[in-house]
Amino acid sequence: MIDTTEQESASDVNDGATVTSGLLSAINSPEDLRKIPEDRLPDLCNEIREFLISNLSKNPGHFGSSMGAVDIIVALHYVFNTPRDRVVWDVGHQAYAHKLLTGRRNEFRNLRKYNGLSGFPIPSESEYDTFVCGHAGNSISAALGMAIADMNTPGETDRKTVAVIGDASIGNGLAFEGLNNASNNPNNLLIILNDNDMSIDDNVGALHRYLSDLTTSSRYNRMRMKVYNKFRKKGWIGDKGKGLVLRFNNSIKALISKQQNIFEGLNIRYFGPFDGNDVRKVVKVLSEIKDMQGPRILHLSTKKGKGFISAEENPQAWHAPGKFDPSTGEKISQKGNLAWQEIFGKTLVELAEKNETICGITAAMPSGTSMSIMQEAFPKRTFDVGISEGHAVTFAGGLAAAGKKPFVAIYSSFLQRAYDNIIHDVAIQGLPVVFCIDRAGIVGEDGVTHHGLFDLAYLRTIPNMTVASPMDASTLRNLMKTAEVSSAPFAIRYPRGKSESSILDPEIKELRKGEGRKIFTSKGTGHKVAILTIGPVGTEAIDAAKKLEKDGISADVFDMIWVKPLDMDILNRVAKDYSLIVTVEDGVKNGGFGSAVLEALSSLKLNTPLLRLGAPDAWVTHGSVAELRAECGFDSDGIRQQILNEVSALSAS
Amino acid sequence: MIDTTEQESASDVNDGATVTSGLLSAINSPEDLRKIPEDRLPDLCNEIREFLISNLSKNPGHFGSSMGAVDIIVALHYVFNTPRDRVVWDVGHQAYAHKLLTGRRNEFRNLRKYNGLSGFPIPSESEYDTFVCGHAGNSISAALGMAIADMNTPGETDRKTVAVIGDASIGNGLAFEGLNNASNNPNNLLIILNDNDMSIDDNVGALHRYLSDLTTSSRYNRMRMKVYNKFRKKGWIGDKGKGLVLRFNNSIKALISKQQNIFEGLNIRYFGPFDGNDVRKVVKVLSEIKDMQGPRILHLSTKKGKGFISAEENPQAWHAPGKFDPSTGEKISQKGNLAWQEIFGKTLVELAEKNETICGITAAMPSGTSMSIMQEAFPKRTFDVGISEGHAVTFAGGLAAAGKKPFVAIYSSFLQRAYDNIIHDVAIQGLPVVFCIDRAGIVGEDGVTHHGLFDLAYLRTIPNMTVASPMDASTLRNLMKTAEVSSAPFAIRYPRGKSESSILDPEIKELRKGEGRKIFTSKGTGHKVAILTIGPVGTEAIDAAKKLEKDGISADVFDMIWVKPLDMDILNRVAKDYSLIVTVEDGVKNGGFGSAVLEALSSLKLNTPLLRLGAPDAWVTHGSVAELRAECGFDSDGIRQQILNEVSALSAS
Repeated sequence: MIDTTEQESASDVNDGATVTSGLLSAINSPEDLRKIPEDRLPDLCNEIREFLISNLSKNPGHFGSSMGAVDIIVALHYVFNTPRDRVVWDVGHQAYAHKLLTGRRNEFRNLRKYNGLSGFPIPSESEYDTFVCGHAGNSISAALGMAIADMNTPGETDRKTVAVIGDASIGNGLAFEGLNNASNNPNNLLIILNDNDMSIDDNVGALHRYLSDLTTSSRYNRMRMKVYNKFRKKGWIGDKGKGLVLRFNNSIKALISKQQNIFEGLNIRYFGPFDGNDVRKVVKVLSEIKDMQGPRILHLSTKKGKGFISAEENPQAWHAPGKFDPSTGEKISQKGNLAWQEIFGKTLVELAEKNETICGITAAMPSGTSMSIMQEAFPKRTFDVGISEGHAVTFAGGLAAAGKKPFVAIYSSFLQRAYDNIIHDVAIQGLPVVFCIDRAGIVGEDGVTHHGLFDLAYLRTIPNMTVASPMDASTLRNLMKTAEVSSAPFAIRYPRGKSESSILDPEIKELRKGEGRKIFTSKGTGHKVAILTIGPVGTEAIDAAKKLEKDGISADVFDMIWVKPLDMDILNRVAKDYSLIVTVEDGVKNGGFGSAVLEALSSLKLNTPLLRLGAPDAWVTHGSVAELRAECGFDSDGIRQQILNEVSALSAS
Repeated sequence: MIDTTEQESASDVNDGATVTSGLLSAINSPEDLRKIPEDRLPDLCNEIREFLISNLSKNPGHFGSSMGAVDIIVALHYVFNTPRDRVVWDVGHQAYAHKLLTGRRNEFRNLRKYNGLSGFPIPSESEYDTFVCGHAGNSISAALGMAIADMNTPGETDRKTVAVIGDASIGNGLAFEGLNNASNNPNNLLIILNDNDMSIDDNVGALHRYLSDLTTSSRYNRMRMKVYNKFRKKGWIGDKGKGLVLRFNNSIKALISKQQNIFEGLNIRYFGPFDGNDVRKVVKVLSEIKDMQGPRILHLSTKKGKGFISAEENPQAWHAPGKFDPSTGEKISQKGNLAWQEIFGKTLVELAEKNETICGITAAMPSGTSMSIMQEAFPKRTFDVGISEGHAVTFAGGLAAAGKKPFVAIYSSFLQRAYDNIIHDVAIQGLPVVFCIDRAGIVGEDGVTHHGLFDLAYLRTIPNMTVASPMDASTLRNLMKTAEVSSAPFAIRYPRGKSESSILDPEIKELRKGEGRKIFTSKGTGHKVAILTIGPVGTEAIDAAKKLEKDGISADVFDMIWVKPLDMDILNRVAKDYSLIVTVEDGVKNGGFGSAVLEALSSLKLNTPLLRLGAPDAWVTHGSVAELRAECGFDSDGIRQQILNEVSALSAS
């Protein structure tokens, strides 16, 4: 039994104060950590926070959640025998301290950089990283697999597995499926609920409110014990529940005994809430429950941004703050063109002002997607459903079935979670839901789990689906207008980051579906090449075409805008007028836009040679977008070079 | 407040007894139903059951759940003003009675037949069918969308929306996401939990046990009231919870007040459980809670197969029993070759006997997939995770990460739910999970929501993924052996139904990855055509090739076996030796196997004309597999005809 009356407060770290105690620099693995006396752990946590502030202010990363999770991470490696005991992270960008303690301190300055450390734990990087953890809610299922595997493997049954999941992730359907299955087979899984009362934005959902209720009522556990003891004294219940005045069934028992909350309703023993920023307390609790049998959940309350006052006060803005001044907490702002997200958000409001049926849906990313602009303008018509992409899409289907016009903005790689919902709950019925697919293509520093490379391939195979991508700000606005008046499912994909525009063109007009445009006419002579592009990589193609002019190649560039339907006029024309067609896309080559062009040409019995450029059949790592495009061969130099090679091969044959 | 002490028992229907009261034949719409006096409703329910028994014994369908849901359906249409009030079904094959009451009684004899009624509610068929409902767990999200839309639409705020969800579906992650969001925005959604204590197979999961506990304790509600009153009398609590000896926080309040169970923890008012096979009781309860504000859940206990003794006693076998004798309950057995599922199940056990790391995973379909064979042989190594496809795949990833070799058997269309899990939790890490994709291709009578047409297209775009499909029993066995020794993700897709074999070939051997085979050499002369096929449609291609011999066309057939990697030797050979290449696949043409062949040929700069046959860019309806293949043009006649057309077009040009 855990003593729940103790509530020590964690030691605080002040902004900018240097408290270097020389502990961290001596830790090259968790084994070193485990040699430190327990009373020095708070100092170590402070030092880690100093390290993070100093590093992340210069080399941006996920600041808030990583600061909040320091004490839990130190305690986990202190109490458990990692790497034999496994820690499975859920959305692992909280786990920077884990990287620091597992031999990656010196490489930390290259975090999220090309050829540097990943921003997430990833098994290919370290034996301490047990599972891929870029998408929320997978930790319980994965850790359960490991825990059950151990129970069925001679010599491994004493091995421990811990899943660390945030309060936003645990509201995800996959996490629930994991919880619902956690008690079906013997296992000793420990789930740590790292509850910082936040998603990236404010957390939503009934489960979240429920957790808040558990947490904010500080005397909760003691109350439960009091009621229990009172009942026992009266002889109404006994420890075994036999021969009593009240004969309790499981649910009634749950009212009074330990088994009273949602988790215990799901047959998982619940402990908490405890202060997860008090490292000694966490060490104590972990030590006490570590060897218990069966699935357990430990609820720890932490503070996002803990140890850096500006971040504690404004956790949303400090989720991934970019560069900042470590002494003042002032962010170093980046100026420049309009972000795609800003164009999306403002245009949506513009449309929504004239069309009352329009509503907006985001899955826990109001600020990331700029759905926040809609939320502010039309709070009743904007729905943040939490990390529930599947629900977001099906819910949108329901809204559409009842006459609304939903715009669902979800990051491309997270929309993969809703693939069946798009098919089953929207496209089969032909419901007019607009998918605004954010973070499409290569996203850069977040890396392999966050690139949105599959969307064009998986969306274009779905009947009834329109798929488009804008190259510039005006086209995004016009596509949104076109989607508004469309009576069928409509997908618009656009990337992370800045567009080419710094001001919003006031004009907005409906486009003709399936009509592309020529965006560059070469002054070159010689081999005639048609470059067909989709989305903002069109600018790379134009740059390549300009370079090719000097190489004596005449490459014209067409912005196709539509993957489905394709512009068959352009295809017919280029197949006849050019000796090489090149497709360029910020997405997988297999099955993607280029593949659609190839299919169309084949159906038309046009056999002009085709060169498809895009992401290869391999996982794309992390780094800057420019570096990764170059690696994939669809930056302007890569496009140019591959066209040169192809032309020379064609000339030779 | 609902009176929970009454527990009338539903009137029973005996097997075969005719109780025709002439009520059903007079009902052509729910309006007619609402004219019937309430005390005749039990008779009507009996009549509907007679009708179902008589019809489904001859024309097979989903028997058990439909029999169980009769009373709920009658009560819903009796109490609510459908179609203005909306009923959203979850896995709508329970809703046959709904079809009978909404003007489709006369067409019911053509249920699930080509051009006949769909086996599921589907909006294109009737204004009473509000949403597509073939995949479990979507009803709450969709209905919530409708209910919230109404609240935001002048003149519609009094409209009611009801979601009817089974106890198996409510354990699904999507359903949880719906529940978790149900109380975020004002709405009057009513959720009916139709709890028949079953999935298609025995239900699993902690939530299910929890529901059982609620249900089996018949005195549950009264106990709760007693405890509450006792506390009140002692002055410990009051209705407003103020000024009391015990100051309760929300959770403690939940111990004693109404707000005590999981659903109320999620802020949804809970009523029940009541007998859902007692139509008058259901009418009474529905009338009482119909106009209440806010999201509510009504828990109704029903019996699968209710009214037909054999089905009540053995609900699993009577989920979709095929033809049967309505008087004796004897099933009319179908003999014939081995089902693909049987080959899968037996082979898995054979491999598992020699390889201790092998384990099996099913998502609520042990009998459907024949994972039951493994379950019986190795119960500890077999995991039924319930309707949780996402969890199934991530859990398999966890098992694989801990050294196990998981074989996950999931229906193709349901695996769409796990698309992101395949990418994120298996393929990025290259974990050796084997996906045994059942019900791939056209499934026949279950129709549009159940066809498994997208898998080849969406799997082949994923790096690290091997994708194969057997044409015959031996190849399935050999592919499973090959998958067993593979160290990377491996997908094998095969259809519903019978293979070409009646006995299991004892031999089993590893295949060479990416090596296809020639399976038919034409004796024809004239135009040389190479037909490349994947999976069992190879037999259609052989039949076509035989017919083409008589048409003076020499068509050889190659069973490619592998979609990824493709057999490049065969591709090189056929591109050079044949004047036309034809691909045939039981899957979408856009982005599928034929598209992969086209990409490969394009990369090899081979421009032999290619004709791709497969499912078109349109939704495929229901009917027999033969009818639907013919509709899609890839039965033997369709293949022959399209080749004839293509050859003549090529000769003309």
